[in-house]
Amino acid sequence: MTEFAQLRALVFDVFGTVVDWRTGVIREATRIGGPNHPDLDWAAFADAWRGRYNPSMELVRNGTLPWMTLDALHRQSLDELLIEFGATDLTPGQRDELVLAWHRLDPWPDVVAGLTRLRTKYVIGTLSNGGVGLLVDMAKRAALPWDLVLSADLVGHYKPDAETYRLPGRLLGVGPDQVMLVAAHLSDLLAARGQGLRTCFIPRPLEYGPAREPDSVDAATDIDVVQANFGDLATYLGC
Amino acid sequence: MTEFAQLRALVFDVFGTVVDWRTGVIREATRIGGPNHPDLDWAAFADAWRGRYNPSMELVRNGTLPWMTLDALHRQSLDELLIEFGATDLTPGQRDELVLAWHRLDPWPDVVAGLTRLRTKYVIGTLSNGGVGLLVDMAKRAALPWDLVLSADLVGHYKPDAETYRLPGRLLGVGPDQVMLVAAHLSDLLAARGQGLRTCFIPRPLEYGPAREPDSVDAATDIDVVQANFGDLATYLGC
Repeated sequence: MTEFAQLRALVFDVFGTVVDWRTGVIREATRIGGPNHPDLDWAAFADAWRGRYNPSMELVRNGTLPWMTLDALHRQSLDELLIEFGATDLTPGQRDELVLAWHRLDPWPDVVAGLTRLRTKYVIGTLSNGGVGLLVDMAKRAALPWDLVLSADLVGHYKPDAETYRLPGRLLGVGPDQVMLVAAHLSDLLAARGQGLRTCFIPRPLEYGPAREPDSVDAATDIDVVQANFGDLATYLGC
Repeated sequence: MTEFAQLRALVFDVFGTVVDWRTGVIREATRIGGPNHPDLDWAAFADAWRGRYNPSMELVRNGTLPWMTLDALHRQSLDELLIEFGATDLTPGQRDELVLAWHRLDPWPDVVAGLTRLRTKYVIGTLSNGGVGLLVDMAKRAALPWDLVLSADLVGHYKPDAETYRLPGRLLGVGPDQVMLVAAHLSDLLAARGQGLRTCFIPRPLEYGPAREPDSVDAATDIDVVQANFGDLATYLGC
């Protein structure tokens, strides 16, 4: 714990770490698309949509696409997916509404209480590839008590580009080692570590549902802290 | 009121509009500098410090200085002022502490209750020349319930440069006319209006103390809304 005496801010990955995207997207997709397509496998649809998340951002990262928000990428991949899933009758209005599913996700049960404790001692913020508008909508709906909403939007780069991890320290006027990234994904944490941030892994075993193994760590993984949930992290950090 | 049916976000000028900078700076300067200089007129010192606010930012706006945060500008002008006021014995540590006076300002009495009502219906955020770190420190200390902390920092331009006013709509994915700037200063409001934002003037008659007349408006002023305080604005907007 003394090793974290200089820690000033905790920034959080959002999709998967803070909120359960899969349950929320299945719920919204079933609500919006279900009446016309009662037999469509909306869980498979949610998984396929999430499957296009990284490839779509990669097109921005490598310069194939200009900067665009995650909402815009979600809309592009949705249009492609609806062809694949045979649901091309969804109207433009229904598609816009479906993109907003990603704004309406519920936090894991430990999140709100844990963040409320953590913010008594630290600046807490998002550090997400979701857009600022998305993150604000989500926070208001789910009562996430962020001090600061930080997004890939603010630097025009998606994680794991280095610019994203440098943002919190720069804006707060503190060193990168005074900022800790909290995430359920090793690729995110290791990229943050490469920019000098402290790192905390929180396993989210249900993130991908039954179909896919979530990330896990062992003693050899180069992560500062592993805690079971946000409440345990608050206890560990003395909040 | 129907004219504001499309309004999504309220962004607030901070120094003078949300917080009483003069009382706070006098308090902190007296605490830090007073023991060594009991006869110094710390109110005049606070006024003189604020007097250097706009000229110092102008050097950034016109390119004489590179981008630097308001904390850095405050530190530069403090060093000059301490010569002028004959208090050059303040140590570097005391000077750093004195710059933090601007992080430790109290809100006007109507602010917290008013913002709490406004945020039930709108996204509320800062739109300040103060840095992100300053604004977060201030919000945590004073329990200001911002959804979003927006700062000149994020665009590398100080108000009234146009880039600052375009930021909220761009980040939230809404039109400039779906954003209202709330401020006690006409120059800020008229610059925002020039970028298509809606505008609300809140008079803060005590901002400058007895020495200087605050801004006021009449029927000819091109401002959308004038309300006496944040509570009246919440009532006016149906919150």
